[in-house]
Amino acid sequence: MNPERYAPIGVFDSGLGGLTVVREIMRNLPDERIVYFGDTARVPYGNKSKETVIRYSRQIVNFLKTQEVKAIVVACNTASALALDTIRPEIDLPIIGVVRPGTEMALQATHNKRIGVIATDSTIRSNLYQTLLREHDKDVRVFAQACPLFVPLVEEGWTKDPVTHIVAERYLADILEQDIDTLIMGCTHYPLLRTLLREVAGESVQLINPAYETALALRRLLDHHGLLNDGRHQITPQYAFYASDTVEKFNAFANSILPYEISSTTQVQIEKY
Amino acid sequence: MNPERYAPIGVFDSGLGGLTVVREIMRNLPDERIVYFGDTARVPYGNKSKETVIRYSRQIVNFLKTQEVKAIVVACNTASALALDTIRPEIDLPIIGVVRPGTEMALQATHNKRIGVIATDSTIRSNLYQTLLREHDKDVRVFAQACPLFVPLVEEGWTKDPVTHIVAERYLADILEQDIDTLIMGCTHYPLLRTLLREVAGESVQLINPAYETALALRRLLDHHGLLNDGRHQITPQYAFYASDTVEKFNAFANSILPYEISSTTQVQIEKY
Repeated sequence: MNPERYAPIGVFDSGLGGLTVVREIMRNLPDERIVYFGDTARVPYGNKSKETVIRYSRQIVNFLKTQEVKAIVVACNTASALALDTIRPEIDLPIIGVVRPGTEMALQATHNKRIGVIATDSTIRSNLYQTLLREHDKDVRVFAQACPLFVPLVEEGWTKDPVTHIVAERYLADILEQDIDTLIMGCTHYPLLRTLLREVAGESVQLINPAYETALALRRLLDHHGLLNDGRHQITPQYAFYASDTVEKFNAFANSILPYEISSTTQVQIEKY
Repeated sequence: MNPERYAPIGVFDSGLGGLTVVREIMRNLPDERIVYFGDTARVPYGNKSKETVIRYSRQIVNFLKTQEVKAIVVACNTASALALDTIRPEIDLPIIGVVRPGTEMALQATHNKRIGVIATDSTIRSNLYQTLLREHDKDVRVFAQACPLFVPLVEEGWTKDPVTHIVAERYLADILEQDIDTLIMGCTHYPLLRTLLREVAGESVQLINPAYETALALRRLLDHHGLLNDGRHQITPQYAFYASDTVEKFNAFANSILPYEISSTTQVQIEKY
């Protein structure tokens, strides 16, 4: 018996969007325990510098280590793009982000090798999606677009609103002209706009949600390290939630996204880690 | 001679918006030195809890004290509304926010005593604008509306865009139906939407920019404490800028707003204060 096998998986995000990744892990790895941290007191990361996103991610990894996690999922595209390569060699735990799984899924999906990527300003500027896609297949053409208004529009609840439709048409106009057949939703909030993005992009464009592929990549990673939970030891609570700001808004959003009701989120002063 | 008279004024904001207040202080108090801090690594405050905004504001006040400022201006509506009353008794420096000057200006401007207030979610929820306006004159009717998309729209540069026009029409619809004659722009970003808000609200509604009145209130406050700079001792640099995230974006935005070119902004790790 390997005791670490029953340890939880640490998952973090700049705020609430990473809960869409938690949802996929719950569905695809139902025996796994999860410790989630949302940096709601410093959200968003998408318009901040690489240096600051690395510093914040490092503090969160330190916090998750105090929770004795067996692996870490960076459930934030911006942190995956800006901080993961710096942090991976600093820790002795398996760690994955959402960017690489997203690119792998897109490369499998595309037929014409013309892929669009939409994400936050910092993620697009990092060029990581673009680099990884072309590294794998130099014939792939990538068309990237930052969509800074999408997160505030989702948080305002305007996910099916005519205003959001106009904004999406404008953001996507250039990349849709490029005859893409695959579009990566490179920010964890964007899958909440899936219906609207489907209308704007049309049926011929496949929408890629990296959260789904990340859950599958996590399963492979845990399996590789002999860390998959076989479900023989039930430990409660199975899911624990932490946030850096007060928890009322966190719980409301979490309960609108997750298949389980959560109530006991704990506030953490994250800059101390 | 009072040496403190030649000390700088500390001004802070959650990010860049407070520079609109700095601009008014530069214009109205040209002999004063200024130390500005923008919390760009943790921006925005407008969707965060009172507890967190107080904690952040306290750290910034501690930092400004290390700069030996003679007075502090909270150039952020959210911090003024959520943190100022808690922090004032904790320090021995004159300190003012932008909310009270904004309400005083609105009370002078209104004829029909029907005043609108637009601001961030946290500022509106704090009820401070509403409370101060009614405290002064119980016949005043206040109509408040949170406009969470305005800051991201300004930061996207869509200050004269049809999308922003539609969003503004929607946000203002209810309060414009209430026959207001005065509208307080209760967030430092909103004056950058003045032209568009003027179109949506119509010529009969006076737009109040608290930044202007804050500069005048600051003059009265300094005068009251014998701290007005008489301009006899020129100390350079007259203006110093600090930010918690890296400074490139800060300098670009500052140079688009301020009458003076700035280049030497310094990054500060604010959570250490």
